[in-house]
Amino acid sequence: MTASSLSITVDKISSNSAKSVDDLVAVEEPLEIRLGYSTPEGHTARSISITMRTPGNDAELALGFLYSESIIQSANDVANVEHCGPPAPDTGHNNIVRVDLAAHVAVDLGRLQRHFYTTSSCGVCGKSSLDALRVIGAKSLAGNEVRFGKEILIAMPDALRNRQRTFDATGGLHAAAAFDSQGEIVVVHEDVGRHNAVDKVVGELLTRELLPANDLGLMVSGRASFELMQKALVAGFPLLAAVSAPSSLAVQLANEFNVSLVGFLRGDTFNIYSAGERII
Amino acid sequence: MTASSLSITVDKISSNSAKSVDDLVAVEEPLEIRLGYSTPEGHTARSISITMRTPGNDAELALGFLYSESIIQSANDVANVEHCGPPAPDTGHNNIVRVDLAAHVAVDLGRLQRHFYTTSSCGVCGKSSLDALRVIGAKSLAGNEVRFGKEILIAMPDALRNRQRTFDATGGLHAAAAFDSQGEIVVVHEDVGRHNAVDKVVGELLTRELLPANDLGLMVSGRASFELMQKALVAGFPLLAAVSAPSSLAVQLANEFNVSLVGFLRGDTFNIYSAGERII
Repeated sequence: MTASSLSITVDKISSNSAKSVDDLVAVEEPLEIRLGYSTPEGHTARSISITMRTPGNDAELALGFLYSESIIQSANDVANVEHCGPPAPDTGHNNIVRVDLAAHVAVDLGRLQRHFYTTSSCGVCGKSSLDALRVIGAKSLAGNEVRFGKEILIAMPDALRNRQRTFDATGGLHAAAAFDSQGEIVVVHEDVGRHNAVDKVVGELLTRELLPANDLGLMVSGRASFELMQKALVAGFPLLAAVSAPSSLAVQLANEFNVSLVGFLRGDTFNIYSAGERII
Repeated sequence: MTASSLSITVDKISSNSAKSVDDLVAVEEPLEIRLGYSTPEGHTARSISITMRTPGNDAELALGFLYSESIIQSANDVANVEHCGPPAPDTGHNNIVRVDLAAHVAVDLGRLQRHFYTTSSCGVCGKSSLDALRVIGAKSLAGNEVRFGKEILIAMPDALRNRQRTFDATGGLHAAAAFDSQGEIVVVHEDVGRHNAVDKVVGELLTRELLPANDLGLMVSGRASFELMQKALVAGFPLLAAVSAPSSLAVQLANEFNVSLVGFLRGDTFNIYSAGERII
């Protein structure tokens, strides 16, 4: 048992047997992200997000989330990150992380609004869906000349799987990894939420000053949604590879910003949905 | 091609071949849910949620969401549901749905806040994670005496799969189904988001006046997270069955409210995590 898995007793049933055994499930707990920032009236703090996540690497998760939302652009924008508040009484986990921004950072909380309560009575009405959700400040990867061999991609699911320690124990976690053009995994993280796994990867890359990730690919264990493509794009990954299917909006976003999008990466086959010139 | 799938061209790559073929991807588009309700100052409306969903059954999705959030309790609480605003210019989908509540419904938008922007500077600080996220008004299923045969459960993944038309075409959708103790599927819906698939099922049950779903089971194609368990509990399902793993918080919630939780329902085996007396 670790912070990311919990011991339980489970009844294993088959068509002709039943037995009670000890097992592990992936831990899911809420994480509140609080942002401290400077205003003309002084330093203030407010809660900006609650996400259900697997405890561990909470600082990276918070930083990756803030980077994906374009609230911060580099590790220099962050003055301090720490858990705050007492541990949750029932589980003992620290479920609040506070990020204090450096004094020079101007915060536009309006950038967060698409994730949350739309305060006007006519939010995205009548706008194009891509317009309404368009990535703030994301740059096209069209000039990016990094290349990934197809044998590198084909080897990646097994490489990712071999690094998924909690998945092995629980069968219940998504994973995300940043890898280089030689097929080396640079960062890998697991989480019950695939967006959290990606945020943790981006957050660690930020703290290691490896952003923008212009010479790395991003591999995810599940499907490629708009949200994951958006996170990959903001972080500067020229390639997103997914074990499962992409969505329509992920494909459209990849085409528009020239991100190489690979899906159904399984066995020795995969599909290329956009920017295939980067795969050799 | 339908509203839920989009034709694209894809390069299919294997270790020794490459070919360009026509394929389908699951459609993912934003849906804004607007709520119209009465206040002392008159009828007003505001945007309360934006979710990435697969177009289709938007009314059911909105109603299921509102039911899960305890904003509405029955179809009588709803005066009108309709798309509003023009179609999105780039895709032609109607991405805004407005739900007007009946005049007698008192709305507490504070109930929505855990999903969104926490407006105070000290949201869930120091509270127990289960306390902070506890389901509002959910009732224990301890007195529920419906029973499901294990052969009914074992047959359910194939039954669900056979009803997933868009998944067959795209490989990219989650599904959720309500089924009775004879193994008959009462409602099934697909979506890129598993929470949306469940909301669509709950919303249709609401309009057919089949809530609370005290004599039905809920089957989901993916994992059983806290969020899905919460939706199942609020809708009154005595059983939640998932093809994949449950999370720790889903197990805890199931135990606390005596919901039967089944996971890893594949082939002819499954695991029981709570309230096994309901499975015979």
